[in-house]
Parts: sequence; C-alpha cells; structure tokens
Amino acid sequence: MRETHVHNQPVVGIVGGGQLARMTIQAAISLDLPVRVLAERPDDSAARVSPHVDLGSPDDPAALRAFARKCDVLTFDHELVDVEVIQQLEDDGHTVYPGARALALGQDKRLQRERFAALGFPVPANCLITGEDDLVRFGQQRGWPLVAKASRGGYDGRGVWILEDLAAARSLLTETAHLPAPLILEECVAIDEEIAVLVARRPSGEIASYPAVETVQTGGICREILAPAPIPPDVAEAAERFARELAAAIDVVGLLALELFISGNHLLVNEIAVRPHNSGHWTIEGSQTSQFEQHLRAILDWPLGDTALMAPAVATVNLLGPPGTPEPLSRALPAVLSVTGAHLHLYGKAPRPGRKLGHITTLGNEIPLTKERARQAAALAGMPREVLA
Amino acid sequence: MRETHVHNQPVVGIVGGGQLARMTIQAAISLDLPVRVLAERPDDSAARVSPHVDLGSPDDPAALRAFARKCDVLTFDHELVDVEVIQQLEDDGHTVYPGARALALGQDKRLQRERFAALGFPVPANCLITGEDDLVRFGQQRGWPLVAKASRGGYDGRGVWILEDLAAARSLLTETAHLPAPLILEECVAIDEEIAVLVARRPSGEIASYPAVETVQTGGICREILAPAPIPPDVAEAAERFARELAAAIDVVGLLALELFISGNHLLVNEIAVRPHNSGHWTIEGSQTSQFEQHLRAILDWPLGDTALMAPAVATVNLLGPPGTPEPLSRALPAVLSVTGAHLHLYGKAPRPGRKLGHITTLGNEIPLTKERARQAAALAGMPREVLA
Repeated sequence: MRETHVHNQPVVGIVGGGQLARMTIQAAISLDLPVRVLAERPDDSAARVSPHVDLGSPDDPAALRAFARKCDVLTFDHELVDVEVIQQLEDDGHTVYPGARALALGQDKRLQRERFAALGFPVPANCLITGEDDLVRFGQQRGWPLVAKASRGGYDGRGVWILEDLAAARSLLTETAHLPAPLILEECVAIDEEIAVLVARRPSGEIASYPAVETVQTGGICREILAPAPIPPDVAEAAERFARELAAAIDVVGLLALELFISGNHLLVNEIAVRPHNSGHWTIEGSQTSQFEQHLRAILDWPLGDTALMAPAVATVNLLGPPGTPEPLSRALPAVLSVTGAHLHLYGKAPRPGRKLGHITTLGNEIPLTKERARQAAALAGMPREVLA
Repeated sequence: MRETHVHNQPVVGIVGGGQLARMTIQAAISLDLPVRVLAERPDDSAARVSPHVDLGSPDDPAALRAFARKCDVLTFDHELVDVEVIQQLEDDGHTVYPGARALALGQDKRLQRERFAALGFPVPANCLITGEDDLVRFGQQRGWPLVAKASRGGYDGRGVWILEDLAAARSLLTETAHLPAPLILEECVAIDEEIAVLVARRPSGEIASYPAVETVQTGGICREILAPAPIPPDVAEAAERFARELAAAIDVVGLLALELFISGNHLLVNEIAVRPHNSGHWTIEGSQTSQFEQHLRAILDWPLGDTALMAPAVATVNLLGPPGTPEPLSRALPAVLSVTGAHLHLYGKAPRPGRKLGHITTLGNEIPLTKERARQAAALAGMPREVLA
C-alpha cells in the first residue's frame, strides 16, 4: 500500500536526486503535491530538501520497483535508467512519464539520428561506426576533421571527440572499444549559434512550447542561456515546429528539450533530452510557468501553463565548479546577492571543477545588459571571467 | 552541538509550522539555506515539506531552548510566543530576529498605539479600557458606535467588536473579563481603503520597502491584495515613510508589515506584524525579491533584494475555506490551472470554514483585468463569488 496524501493528491516519484529533482520539489510545494525521491545518497541535491527520500540506485530493479509502488506517477531526474526495467514497470501497470520508449530515445544519440531522419529533420551528415571501413569511407566522403560521439552516456562535453585525421579516429576506436554502444561519426559543423527549444506534452496530447533560447557553450558545457534566442522569427518557428512534431511523434509525456545548431543559413537538429533541462532554468523567473511546474502539470495530465516571457530579455549563467580547490559557493553568497535583480539558485552540491553547482538568472529589457548583470553576479560567485562565455 | 551544514551555511530555525514557514522553506532552497522548523504537529503546513522538523510547542520553554541550540538564527512563523522566554534566549547568546522587544510590540496593539503616538503617527482616536468609566467617557467624547479590540491575540477578524452603544460595551466588558490583556476602545473610522506597507531591515540598518498595496478585507479577513495600491503617490510615500521610520525606531530585524487605513484625506496607522505577512504574498511572483527570500536576507544580514514590481499590476486572492463541508482544494486544481497566468499556492492545510488555505496571484498591465483573472481562478478553486471582495 502506498502512503496516502492527506489531500488525495497523486504522489509523484522522481528517480534520481539531482538539481532537476530539487527544483521540481521546490515547484511542487506551491501545488501541495507530495514528491518522493529515489536518491543514491542522503546528501544528493534533491535529497537534502525533501522529507520523502528513498535511498537506492536507479540501476537496482528491486529498488525501482519498491519505489514505484509508493508513487502514483514516476518521472526522472536523468535518463540513466535501464529501459527494460522501466518497460516492465509500465507492463505491471505503473504510470511512468516519459515512458520506456521515449527514455530509450533520450539515452541514445544513434536512435535519435534515425528518428530525426525518419521525420525529415535536417541533421549533420553522420554515420554509425561499425568498423574501420566506416572511418575510411566517411572520412573520404566528408573530409577531416570529423566529430565522433558516443551514442550513449555522454554529457557536459564528455563522450565527444574532435578527430583531426584517420589516425586519430583509428586510435579513438581502439580506446573506446570497451564502450557498450557504437560511436557516431559526424561532419564537423561550423556552428554559429546553438539553440534549444523546450516543449511540454501531456497524455491528452496538448503541447506547450517555450520560446527558442540561445545556449552558449564552451567545451561542450552550457555556460549561458539567453531568452529569447536572438534569431530570425522564421528560424525560431522552424525549431519550435521540430520540437512539437518530435514530441507528438515519440508520444513523450512531460518535458522534451530539443537542441539545435545554426550554421550559416542552416538549422540542424542535434539531440534531445526527455526531462526538464538546463536550457530551461531561466523559466523559473523568466516565464509565466517554470519548466518544473510545467513538467508536473504535464505528467499529471493537468492543463499546461502559459509559456510567455516575464520580461523582454532573460539571461541565465551557470555556476560551474572552478578549477583548483574551490571554495563553497555559499561564502560568496552575500556578494552575489548585492547584484540588483540577480536570482541565485544553488543546488547544494559539493564543489568540483566543471560541476554544475547553481545558476543565476536576470531579467531585463534587452539581452546585452541583462546578460552582463548575470555575468557580474556569476563573477562575484567565483566564476572566473574567462570561463564565462 | 548543532548539526553543521555541509556548505557551512547558517541554520535558520523557524518557530511555528504555518504557511509563512512553508513559503520561507521554499525560498530557502534556492539559497541552499538549511531551515529547521519547530512545528506542533507533523502535518503542519511547513512540516509537510521540510526534512528538518522538530516537534514541539512554541509555548514550551524547554522545546524552544532545545530548538535554539540546533540553529544559528531563530525567527518566527507567528508572534504567539512568550517574549520572556525569547528574551532569555537572547540573553543566553542566541540570535533571534525579530528580538523580544519587537516581538512584544507585534503581539500587543496597546503597545503599538503608544509607540505610534510617540513617533507622531496619525492613529484613530483610542483609549485603553481600564473600567466602565472609560466606556462612558470615551463614548461621550466620540459618540457611538465605537470599535473594541483585544490588545492581544486577535487575528483574521477575531478580537474585534463593533459596539453600537454603551450597553453593548458594558456587556462585552463582562464577556471578556477573562482575557489576560485589556481592551482598546477606538473611534469607528469610515474606512475608504486599507493599505499595507512591507519593509525589511537588516542588523546593519539597511531598509528596503515594497510599494504600498491595497488590502481588500471583509469581516476582518484579507481577501485580496492589489499591488501597487491605487492611491496618490504622496499617500503611498507617507505610508512607506511611516513603515521605514517605525522599523528603525523599534530596531526590528527581518520583515515588518504596517497596516493603515485611508479615511477621506486622512492616512491612519492601524497595526503591525513583525514577520512575513499575508499582504506580501504577491511578492513571490510580483516582485524581483519575494518577501520570504527578503526575510532570510534580512535576518542573515545579507544585502536586501530589489523590491521592484515584475509587472505594472499584481493581484493576489486568498483562498479561504468556504462555509459548510469543504472539498479539498486539490480536487479543483486542474480547473484553477486552466486559467492563463494564475499562480497557485496551496498551503497543505485541512479545509475549515474561513481558514486561509492558499492564494492565487496574477500579473498584468492594469489592476481591474488582473484582479478579475485572479478572481476567476479563485472561483474555480471553489471560492464563492460572494465572498470575493
């Protein structure tokens, strides 16, 4: 028997205790929604703020099953779960959003490439590496350098390699032979801008999309998010259309983030995440409905919220663990708070170089000044100016 | 030894587990501030969302002392604590904001009247009732009807009586003879409008004030808050000046809400609360800095946040338990969420007639439409139209 909420609200279970779960819990308080978290450690970002924590690994089928029995609907902080176990939970009658098929797509860049092609989306030229022959053939077709990507498991710049020539490609193939999934070889796109579109979809089919945003990346890690993206309206509309089409095509429930490249006049679809996403943190203050509340509405099949901007320009700067031995961000807190209109979000994570520890959002009338204010606050939080984009 | 937070953040302890504590906890997540709650019951509004709950009564000095030892700074969900115990905690070296003297003032309308008079603030004509002679004398001076107020313990319309004549006054005096504190007799002001000003003050002396808001009251219970108050700028400035002067004069740390009447051309100071206040719930979405984050900044002596409005007009409608046997508000949740831009906050409290169960905030370009949208959402939440102001 699952615990019954005093107000008969459905119990939402989140698998994974990271900052996405944490900010979802924060949003759920307003709706008086009870949220349980399956966290690996009691000091996980979300576990630290939740009175309803189950300790267990998302890799442990027994832990997942026990957790599912306590919840009315299951959702995820990250995609790193065994889709076969999730499929089994669905077969057993549990409500899981996104479901096993959408999760499988979120986990696998190769499946994404195939799905994008089937939908006729423009994508970077790519091929699956099944052996050395593919390296030679694709290298001759497109010329070097090329980009290699792990089809599974990569994030924040990990699992992506720039290959200068065939020799480098051969050596990477040897080094990554232990990986469970094949690599993808892709043309080296001259990226002018990276953008992302976030959409929410509920079981009834209703879809709401947020305006396209620019995601400023360095070393494969998102540093800044600027909303709305400074791009022509027809490009933004095309990106939004792709995201909506994809959400409907894969029958996703909850949030879907679609990441795209702009290269010259071309819009190229890159990859997706089927959950709240770093590129949507600006929505907490910057949109009528935060992505976290929107995700809850979607998975509960409630009316989706308004996605209008709260100001003409919104900027979010990620706070990453700096190199060396970082100070706890909390030391810098009063200085950061002295920046007028800087909305600080700390995730309660121990500082490590390159780790996402928090973010700062500012609202304003135009992007340059708004972004500068967020950067100023981030610099006071100890982010070296040079790592700010 | 108090528990040490992994990030060396100060531990904030809130005495009382109501909705103010709950919304403070929600704000504290963004700042990664650990908050402990001293709640009477595990299903208190704030206890339901906190992983750090101590069960105990604010009336129990031992419970308060044990709680204080676990916290770096103590603050309050309500003023209903024994100020002598609080004074003792301060004497023992605990940091308590607001302190015993400000709390004593917040608890006692009689002390407030004296302080307002000493500061030269305009107040309704009033007298302390020490016996029947006062009834006769003040009734002859001002004429009937008059208003009687309990100097301590009243809220949401309780502890206030309209007295039509001397006989009614005499009978009230008999009925209330058991009350520990005397009554105040006050002229029956022809109130055109009620307004409130919220200010925050930190130990360093910095004060930040929010724009004056209109509080629409029925039966002594606040139904709606409209920001900014539709009043002439000089009236708003005077109200704000009173609030700032008072905060400095009484050396309050944290938030102070000053409630005032507008009667004809007169601005009259009514009463105060020394904590976050219902009249400030609009700040969650409607201001750059929510009153709950502002209170945390103030009691930690951190820079106070910007109090600018996020939109030209902000409306908040309180959700009160309707008469009869109310349905849980959660049943109505999807309907409420279908109203574009309605920001719903539920407090997780069991429904009882007249009890504050939640609120809805909307933002817009002008008050009438913005208010109408909030009322529409409140009606869908089951609030009878006739109790909406």
